[in-house]
Amino acid sequence: MHTDLAAALDIGGTKIAGALVDGQGTVLVRAQRPTPAEQDGETVMRAVEGVLGELAGSPLWGRARGLGIGSAGPVDASAGTVSPVNVPGWRDFPLVERVRAVTGGLPVELIGDGVAVTAAEHWQGAARGHDDALCMVVSTGVGGGLVLGGRVHPGPTGNAGHIGHISVDLDGDPCPCGSRGCVERLASGPNIARRALENGWRPGPDGDTTAAAVAAAARAGDPVAVASFERAAQALAAGIAATATLVEIDVAVIGGGVAKAGDVLFTPLRRALADYATLSFVRRLTVVPARTGTDAGLVGAAASILTGRPGAAPAGV
Amino acid sequence: MHTDLAAALDIGGTKIAGALVDGQGTVLVRAQRPTPAEQDGETVMRAVEGVLGELAGSPLWGRARGLGIGSAGPVDASAGTVSPVNVPGWRDFPLVERVRAVTGGLPVELIGDGVAVTAAEHWQGAARGHDDALCMVVSTGVGGGLVLGGRVHPGPTGNAGHIGHISVDLDGDPCPCGSRGCVERLASGPNIARRALENGWRPGPDGDTTAAAVAAAARAGDPVAVASFERAAQALAAGIAATATLVEIDVAVIGGGVAKAGDVLFTPLRRALADYATLSFVRRLTVVPARTGTDAGLVGAAASILTGRPGAAPAGV
Repeated sequence: MHTDLAAALDIGGTKIAGALVDGQGTVLVRAQRPTPAEQDGETVMRAVEGVLGELAGSPLWGRARGLGIGSAGPVDASAGTVSPVNVPGWRDFPLVERVRAVTGGLPVELIGDGVAVTAAEHWQGAARGHDDALCMVVSTGVGGGLVLGGRVHPGPTGNAGHIGHISVDLDGDPCPCGSRGCVERLASGPNIARRALENGWRPGPDGDTTAAAVAAAARAGDPVAVASFERAAQALAAGIAATATLVEIDVAVIGGGVAKAGDVLFTPLRRALADYATLSFVRRLTVVPARTGTDAGLVGAAASILTGRPGAAPAGV
Repeated sequence: MHTDLAAALDIGGTKIAGALVDGQGTVLVRAQRPTPAEQDGETVMRAVEGVLGELAGSPLWGRARGLGIGSAGPVDASAGTVSPVNVPGWRDFPLVERVRAVTGGLPVELIGDGVAVTAAEHWQGAARGHDDALCMVVSTGVGGGLVLGGRVHPGPTGNAGHIGHISVDLDGDPCPCGSRGCVERLASGPNIARRALENGWRPGPDGDTTAAAVAAAARAGDPVAVASFERAAQALAAGIAATATLVEIDVAVIGGGVAKAGDVLFTPLRRALADYATLSFVRRLTVVPARTGTDAGLVGAAASILTGRPGAAPAGV
């Protein structure tokens, strides 16, 4: 029997998703449980074991050559532990060891969720064919990952690409991470909505105060809504330009719920990027929407197994 | 005869230095000319040819296995061209082709000067033994380079690590590069001195208004001088923390004239770093002074030849 598939886990604060993925990045089998995020660590682990048990029940399980795990961060790939901010029961939780105990001798690779999404975009999405790229998820938070020299760059602990928590405003508002003026503090969906509300934007009759509602208002021409997206775009541009200036990338790929705002975000973002990305070697940088969807975390985790190293395209694909 | 040496060029706005360097990083032969920076490109090239001619006159020249060039940036390693900001006569100047015409079949490697200093610090200095490091030069400008996964990361065009021109203050003062609130705009020597003068610091009887004079005043307790170094330290900390958060580094090495201020810079820098480097995977980051001196550019350029790839230690060393 060929060992041509990868098992994959995508662990977030809301759900724990699992899959068996083939060498073309297609999800063949999937399983999912809600994350019992407010409960103790063992209860969360039992949900992981439930997902793995379901996958192991598939006749395809025997063809898995390894298990890739993309987890909400911070992770510590070198120690095999995870401490997801939104799962308080897991602090330095030995996820790799615990998963190995369930899956027998299967090789296990752990990476952060931003790195996993980046691996998926590099393999299957908008970063495909780019040797140097930044991939971002702009949503409730702002995460990301890097492709450098043709390969995903997870960094020694699997956390590289955390663009949401670089400061672009060193005297700015405190961020829950402890720093100030982080990209996330200015550009995440909740912060786009908060800023619009603070500046006088009011929701429609449905009472929807999400960033999606602010985006709809901006499309309809509401100047406060437009300004809130412009400020987010400015922060994203400063962060993307900083990344390009530091490591040389030629494309920034942006996914996540806030990216669905489309031109309301991308038009001011491209304008602001010209203001901050000024050196000759970063001027060619383009910004494009992500192409992979909700399966990106699973597909990227699978890539870390199918390619031997996260993000490199599998041989022969 | 063994080909165990490298020829090296270090091209800056003030001088063009050349050397023959052995596998231990020792400079065996050196040559130097002032950079005719305000003259036409051919005149600058003749100074380079003069330095190379002097090196070629050495009986050791035949043992050089290649020529490494570290040049003031921006450079374009992929095109073999340089456009040093302070040498207006060179814009997209085909330096690699021109040097090859003089040196015959010798392999030539071009990297930016920040990358060259990083290669030297990784090979011989404070970044030695570190697989992931940022090396900076804080002086008239602020430059830098990265070591990632055990190797210097020049990036596709040889400019990676340009930390001086990442914005840490997106609404801040305009920078000559065209962006705003760049690390260099807040932390370079001339900007430390400018800020001190603007806030009321006055030089001593010698009239010295350099950052070194501000550092001396800060050591003597002048609060305006202290505050100017603290602001520079804050900007450097935000930039270093951003780098660590993006690519995972465990050490930041700081050289250049401003680093000679010692504790006046390093004490507030380490304090500010704790404010900005907050995520678990960047908290172990340390900041240390550079160890290589004025030969760093030459030694780093030589490393790019002696190691095959910039920054990796030569085999057997």
